Amino acid sequence: MGAALRERVAEARVARLATVGADGTPHLVPICFALDGDVLYSAVDSKPKRSQALKRLENVRGNPRVAVLVDHYDDDWTRLWWVRLDGRGRVLTAGPEREHAVALLEARYPQYAPGTLTGPVLAIEIDRWRGWEHGD
Amino acid sequence: MGAALRERVAEARVARLATVGADGTPHLVPICFALDGDVLYSAVDSKPKRSQALKRLENVRGNPRVAVLVDHYDDDWTRLWWVRLDGRGRVLTAGPEREHAVALLEARYPQYAPGTLTGPVLAIEIDRWRGWEHGD
Repeated sequence: MGAALRERVAEARVARLATVGADGTPHLVPICFALDGDVLYSAVDSKPKRSQALKRLENVRGNPRVAVLVDHYDDDWTRLWWVRLDGRGRVLTAGPEREHAVALLEARYPQYAPGTLTGPVLAIEIDRWRGWEHGD
Repeated sequence: MGAALRERVAEARVARLATVGADGTPHLVPICFALDGDVLYSAVDSKPKRSQALKRLENVRGNPRVAVLVDHYDDDWTRLWWVRLDGRGRVLTAGPEREHAVALLEARYPQYAPGTLTGPVLAIEIDRWRGWEHGD
């Protein structure tokens, strides 16, 4: 994994998370996230999107394989790039790792009012970083 | 499906496509696309990203279930929204539907130089439109 890939992900404000249901159906949602080495954390909002939130957690519990994509679009296609993280998800409902993740997320997104991240956190162990940019 | 969802997708320049491999691993890539009613078309670039292109087509051939996401991020979270299309993919390697799709894609993206879209086209039959926005 090159430093450039990490930098691109670390600077992004949004990514997209794909999980897979028991029947083989992909589920896709945008996520806010925080990166800590080769672990990516994403919180599930407390109230809104509850059924969506449950779906992604249910999927990960049944099949931990996930993909996360950060991409940049520009109508000048010479500026296109993307970074994909392939990994395995774990659901954190309590404990020090969850607290650590919440602190990272709150530090990164002032939009999370303190104390509002009360739900589960998805931790993704990144197994592979893969990047593409125009010219590759 | 509301007209607002369709409009948001129709105006977007990029979406993200999730497919699923035979081993249950999700695959995620950004795509350019054209919408025609409840079918979404996306071309596979001829030369670059060949292995990536083959992967998504291989996945769809084995498991047609796909998800496509269009989302809008803003640091003002009251402006967040996304639209997800759940559907089934078909790979078009030749024939009138593929030609039609290429024409739609070329009309939408002047970046596709005429005659360069010589590879397969992915057609997605949209079974479900689902949208979310801040406040939902």
